[in-house]
Amino acid sequence: MLVKIIQPEIIELIEKRDFATLKEVVADWQPVEIADLIVDLPTVQDQIILLRLLPQATSAAVFEYLALDIQKSLLKSLGNQDVATILNGMSPDDRTALLEELPAKMTKLALSLLSTEERQVAVSLLGYPEHSVGRLMTPEFIATTPSWTVQQVLDFVRENGKDSETLNVLYVVDEKGRLIDDIRIREFLVAPLNHLVRDLMDDSFVHLLVDDDREKALGVFKKYDRTVLPVTDNGGILIGIVTVDDMLDVAEKEATEDIQKIGAVESLDEPYSTIPLLSMIKKRAGWLSILFIGEMFTASAMGFFEHQINKAVVLALFVPLIISSGGNSGSQASTLVIRALSLGEIKLKDWFFVVRREFSSGLILGCILATLGFLRILIWQSISNIYGDHWLLVAVTVGFSLIGVVMWGTLMGAVLPLILRRLGFDPATSSAPFVATLVDVTGLIIYFTVAILVMRGTLL
Amino acid sequence: MLVKIIQPEIIELIEKRDFATLKEVVADWQPVEIADLIVDLPTVQDQIILLRLLPQATSAAVFEYLALDIQKSLLKSLGNQDVATILNGMSPDDRTALLEELPAKMTKLALSLLSTEERQVAVSLLGYPEHSVGRLMTPEFIATTPSWTVQQVLDFVRENGKDSETLNVLYVVDEKGRLIDDIRIREFLVAPLNHLVRDLMDDSFVHLLVDDDREKALGVFKKYDRTVLPVTDNGGILIGIVTVDDMLDVAEKEATEDIQKIGAVESLDEPYSTIPLLSMIKKRAGWLSILFIGEMFTASAMGFFEHQINKAVVLALFVPLIISSGGNSGSQASTLVIRALSLGEIKLKDWFFVVRREFSSGLILGCILATLGFLRILIWQSISNIYGDHWLLVAVTVGFSLIGVVMWGTLMGAVLPLILRRLGFDPATSSAPFVATLVDVTGLIIYFTVAILVMRGTLL
Repeated sequence: MLVKIIQPEIIELIEKRDFATLKEVVADWQPVEIADLIVDLPTVQDQIILLRLLPQATSAAVFEYLALDIQKSLLKSLGNQDVATILNGMSPDDRTALLEELPAKMTKLALSLLSTEERQVAVSLLGYPEHSVGRLMTPEFIATTPSWTVQQVLDFVRENGKDSETLNVLYVVDEKGRLIDDIRIREFLVAPLNHLVRDLMDDSFVHLLVDDDREKALGVFKKYDRTVLPVTDNGGILIGIVTVDDMLDVAEKEATEDIQKIGAVESLDEPYSTIPLLSMIKKRAGWLSILFIGEMFTASAMGFFEHQINKAVVLALFVPLIISSGGNSGSQASTLVIRALSLGEIKLKDWFFVVRREFSSGLILGCILATLGFLRILIWQSISNIYGDHWLLVAVTVGFSLIGVVMWGTLMGAVLPLILRRLGFDPATSSAPFVATLVDVTGLIIYFTVAILVMRGTLL
Repeated sequence: MLVKIIQPEIIELIEKRDFATLKEVVADWQPVEIADLIVDLPTVQDQIILLRLLPQATSAAVFEYLALDIQKSLLKSLGNQDVATILNGMSPDDRTALLEELPAKMTKLALSLLSTEERQVAVSLLGYPEHSVGRLMTPEFIATTPSWTVQQVLDFVRENGKDSETLNVLYVVDEKGRLIDDIRIREFLVAPLNHLVRDLMDDSFVHLLVDDDREKALGVFKKYDRTVLPVTDNGGILIGIVTVDDMLDVAEKEATEDIQKIGAVESLDEPYSTIPLLSMIKKRAGWLSILFIGEMFTASAMGFFEHQINKAVVLALFVPLIISSGGNSGSQASTLVIRALSLGEIKLKDWFFVVRREFSSGLILGCILATLGFLRILIWQSISNIYGDHWLLVAVTVGFSLIGVVMWGTLMGAVLPLILRRLGFDPATSSAPFVATLVDVTGLIIYFTVAILVMRGTLL
């Protein structure tokens, strides 16, 4: 990997305000390297100085490699002239990603600084729904027609290819602009020059619709192993392309959303390091309060068995152990099922397969924990007689309760995501609280019911 | 998106055993479409019949699009002759992915069926460590030297490009085969034909080392927005390329690992739908038992306060509510911090930033839950007098305990992943059990300590 090891010299140049030398030094750097340097600079002022030293074309390319939050802070501090240069030079898909993050007022200002042509492009891309393919699209592609020769196509590319986002795939459209084929550049490169585009066509292509959800687009990229896909409107007209590098970002964002939802946080939609404290607390307080209100039922359940606790306080000692075991086995099962659903490894129609598997898993896991619990009571008792004369009843109660609670937790954890998906909810969002509450409350009921059955006539 | 809607006709052809027509029908299909059809066939026998109908080159291409588990089941049932055709025709990176999944005995057989040349390639790729770039690499690329003209390069590509995995980027090597530059095909397409490769070079390139971890490779792809990256050995010799479509799989696998670890399961490394039941139970039983043994301390903590519970059974009623609140706030915080660490949004050196944030978050979230808890007791009490004369003391105890427990849970949830990372452990793997146990046990201590302070001289 490429690493520039002249950082200290650069810092020195900036400290000495020797911008002429600095300009020379970075002249043969790659945009991504200059972007790295900008990130490392201590103040926004220095960042702006460096950015303004660059040739116009380079500054936009460098800017594209910066993270969104740095882009935002730079835009605020740059003069309108510089903002105009950068925004007009950015590729449309990266620009859309930036514009949709800006506050409405700044987006308006930014749009007003664009050239008429670029503004039309920017406004039309921003018009597509959030998380849609339209927001990821760039209209810079190469389209050919079936009647051209390979030589004509290559000449056309030589003259017009500079602006295209990618040249890996060229598209074939009919006279109305409708997409009729995609042909990889390699086909043109290995074909005789006098062949026609028509001869290379296989009349088969994969495309995205502009209103498709980005998660669907990700699935298409994965399935067909493409680096770029064409985007059409509902009439089949080719209006843009989406490249796979944007899909890596989509995959990461979707995974983050899933992870945060499983951890019972609304998806932050912003990096942990930059989201304002109050926004983050808002995202957390909602679910935490719902979980809390759900868990209040545990107090009611405990109240229902207050009489039993009063008679055998020893029962209370194992309450946290019992309900946490149910909770843990439930969260294992729901994590596995949620991820398998989201990867398409299992479908709703596989519900019976899931139930059978989790029934067996729950039974075996429950027996393992029951054994551990039983041993624990046996050992403690033989050391200290802590559980009194009826220790065996306590051990039997805890053991059987653990089997029941773990089986119940495992089954609920596996089935609830399926039910939620069936009802049209996102299984990741809503499972954790439901599973936790349901399993804790029913875990208590299972435990005390087993206790009453086992201890009737003795302790209870 | 491309969808074949002639499925019923196909099924009919197979049922009628009309393979001649079937062969004609699929003749102009894309490999990925035929792969889809194979997946939909009801029996392995039918799948094999269809696969054997295809021309040799097509069958390998179709096979590459099948999921690993289907590939495995087909290999077991195909004759050696067919296996040889398919394996020799597959691209080396996909073949490596398959071979590393096979049982050792089948891998040996498979290798023996390869041609001498392909076997050398396969054995050398399998020699790289698991999860390394070498395992993802294919040796099929195009290398040029600085002295060639653009015309020479394009002619060379036309003659030799058919086997290359991608033509999007060509590589420049020196006389010893060391990588000295990468040039995108677009540069050749837009350059005058008599220019030299040397004229297009910028002497700057990004590459991967063959022993690099796949997660590192993913980071490089994301940072530099590449669709393909060259791979060199430690001496700088160009030995292969890795394409971005493999990175989408890597991103998905890494996210799945993280998610499963957060859900306190060892990473399954196999789809939920195909992993044998006992293997899955093994992956779950380990953490579940560790969590359970950790949670046994809650029984000890409860035992320590048995005297207090005996005197005021009302205290026991809120135990599940209190510890689940600590657990939930802890899992929120640890989920956020683990994901932010894995995305590089925060680093170890930001620990103080994290502590400050989570201290404030914990305090505010704790106050919210305390208010809810207080209100709940107030309302229940005014309806039913369930908590007796000292209900206010109970409400105050629960309220203050919630503030303490939620703050403690939030702080521990945030800090433990950082500490584990600092000690060299994977924060995702080990956080959940530590946080859960620590927060539950200390939550009980906080609760009963607050109770003793508030209720001394009255209830206790």
